[in-house]
Amino acid sequence: MSSTFPQRPLPTLEQLSTPCLVLERGKLARNLIRMAAALSIRGIGLRPHLKTAKSVEIARLASPTPFGPITVSTLREAEYFSHHGWRDIFYAVGLGPGKLARAVALMRAGVRLVTMVDHPDAAAAVRDCARRERLSFRTVIEIDCGEHRGGVLPDSSELLVIARLLGSNFAGVATHGGQSYGERSREGFTRVAQVETDALRTAAARLHAAGFQSEILSLGSSPTALVGVDLAGITELRAGVYMMGDAFQTGIGACAMDDIALSVLAEVIGRPANRPHEFLIDAGAFALSKDSSTAVLAGERNAGFGFVCDLDGQVQPGLRVTKVWQEHGLVVSPTPLLAGAFRIGDRVRILPNHACPTAAAHDRYFVVAASREVVGEWTRVNGW
Amino acid sequence: MSSTFPQRPLPTLEQLSTPCLVLERGKLARNLIRMAAALSIRGIGLRPHLKTAKSVEIARLASPTPFGPITVSTLREAEYFSHHGWRDIFYAVGLGPGKLARAVALMRAGVRLVTMVDHPDAAAAVRDCARRERLSFRTVIEIDCGEHRGGVLPDSSELLVIARLLGSNFAGVATHGGQSYGERSREGFTRVAQVETDALRTAAARLHAAGFQSEILSLGSSPTALVGVDLAGITELRAGVYMMGDAFQTGIGACAMDDIALSVLAEVIGRPANRPHEFLIDAGAFALSKDSSTAVLAGERNAGFGFVCDLDGQVQPGLRVTKVWQEHGLVVSPTPLLAGAFRIGDRVRILPNHACPTAAAHDRYFVVAASREVVGEWTRVNGW
Repeated sequence: MSSTFPQRPLPTLEQLSTPCLVLERGKLARNLIRMAAALSIRGIGLRPHLKTAKSVEIARLASPTPFGPITVSTLREAEYFSHHGWRDIFYAVGLGPGKLARAVALMRAGVRLVTMVDHPDAAAAVRDCARRERLSFRTVIEIDCGEHRGGVLPDSSELLVIARLLGSNFAGVATHGGQSYGERSREGFTRVAQVETDALRTAAARLHAAGFQSEILSLGSSPTALVGVDLAGITELRAGVYMMGDAFQTGIGACAMDDIALSVLAEVIGRPANRPHEFLIDAGAFALSKDSSTAVLAGERNAGFGFVCDLDGQVQPGLRVTKVWQEHGLVVSPTPLLAGAFRIGDRVRILPNHACPTAAAHDRYFVVAASREVVGEWTRVNGW
Repeated sequence: MSSTFPQRPLPTLEQLSTPCLVLERGKLARNLIRMAAALSIRGIGLRPHLKTAKSVEIARLASPTPFGPITVSTLREAEYFSHHGWRDIFYAVGLGPGKLARAVALMRAGVRLVTMVDHPDAAAAVRDCARRERLSFRTVIEIDCGEHRGGVLPDSSELLVIARLLGSNFAGVATHGGQSYGERSREGFTRVAQVETDALRTAAARLHAAGFQSEILSLGSSPTALVGVDLAGITELRAGVYMMGDAFQTGIGACAMDDIALSVLAEVIGRPANRPHEFLIDAGAFALSKDSSTAVLAGERNAGFGFVCDLDGQVQPGLRVTKVWQEHGLVVSPTPLLAGAFRIGDRVRILPNHACPTAAAHDRYFVVAASREVVGEWTRVNGW
């Protein structure tokens, strides 16, 4: 098992310093296979989004082919994956002019970098940079299919203005149906998947009529990736958080609780004498993140700041992290805790509310397979 | 100016890769001096809490004496400061038995480590470890003065049970009036400061009567640190976020907007054609954090995910980051934006809602003094 960390005897979950990030290899593999198999059957290429995993070890498992196409959310990720051999990288955030120099450095290092713009000024900056540096960008135009984050509307006049500014640097269109996270059912995900597909087709057809051939038609989000809409004409699908799963993905029906591959290992550090329903752990806002996405979900599906498992990953019914301070988490049980359970020094594992920010607080994964033995330490790249 | 990063020509704010953390040295110095002067006048020792700054360069400025006593929130901080020469370090989170080995290693490396417990089982683990390792801990008992996070009540029976278990490892008492963050006025902060002081005195008196002399009576929080309650008998005061300030501290009246020394430098990466009040920046949930503490504050004081400044740090009235995705932040203006303002590629600085988690997303500070020139890169230690 590859690792960039020094080789040494690997510990067990009882021995790790807490808090830290635990990754179940079996669940990860199952999540990866489910996605790869579904997309293979549908005949659509997968460009896994590494924004959650940020790890070469995971990227190797997530790509159907060695060093296959990947998506990243920061240029630091692009540089890290380039350093480890990847050559087809889509930086799926609108490229500001301030990032052109690093993009050029990646391209000069041999990366077939896909960049994205949604504004004439950004397109003009790409064109000017390409001329100045005597190279050609592969730049897609971001399409807003309804999330209203970035992107131009597929029927907007800006679409053609931007394509003309890009000229030979134009490579296609991309969208992200992030509004899928507001849906709660397969029907809802299917509806958004159809919207994503329609938006790209509309944009690509208008561009085609104006003389611009789209090499890339890229779309996706974890909830919309596994539904069955017709993807004819779409060239690739992006998804990321499906690798890990989390309480929010479970809550909206995009994965099962048993699919969640990521947890934070924590130690019980407090058992207040006068509060028999509560204990404190050494994982707080920093180790779990302050993301409380599941607060919009009702009752049992509201994870607070995380569901509580024992050391073997068994969910403890009703227990949640309900409050976090910087380095403390408060676990509340619906019934008074037994004296012998969750004692000082005992260890628990917390399933994250939202995998992406939880993972981002940590610099590595401790990987477990079928037991409490750590079978590997996998790297992460954080920051920008 | 010291730096552990490679020496190279230092950039300007126009040249830095975004997003990144900018620290105004003048405001930092003013915040540090205000605290140091106030405590000096009151005759109380300062044990600055490095949980926000996590930086040796800042710790050097924050301590009234070279390598003076400091407080940390993680053992990794303790190890980092020990490596850089500090010897009197208070790890101010309840010490779980799983952390004893690292605590011992610090003590063997020459650190006079202060540890803290609030449960008989944790105290017994300290005692057993001390015997086994043939060394003596300096362990304080955590007192709950009303925040109901960790700690025993000052009049509880556990207090004496824990002291007896600690035996010669007993060193005193400590509390943190975290409920001060629920107050909104100097009167409120004063009330909590009095509660902190009373709780420690009550606990220390009961311990004294039972034969335990408290070497350390440690308390504090940034809002309660600068009020004028009588601190007779208290040996040290802890505070941390005052170094930086943030929108929440401003909102509750603990600092002024102009005191906020920390900001996140970001680039404008989107100007949606059909949304004239909005622009997108490349600082989102990861670079700013998802902390929305100021949401409980009314109107103007609700910073969303941050107030918006120009490159020189001038607050732009009414502009806020109202929504964040992983790598995108949405800035909304109360009035339509002028075509020439906040163009693609322009840079802004975001004042954080809560300095601690915002800083924790970054691995260094870019320090500015009176201009846009970066005068130093200062380290941070994240993780555990």
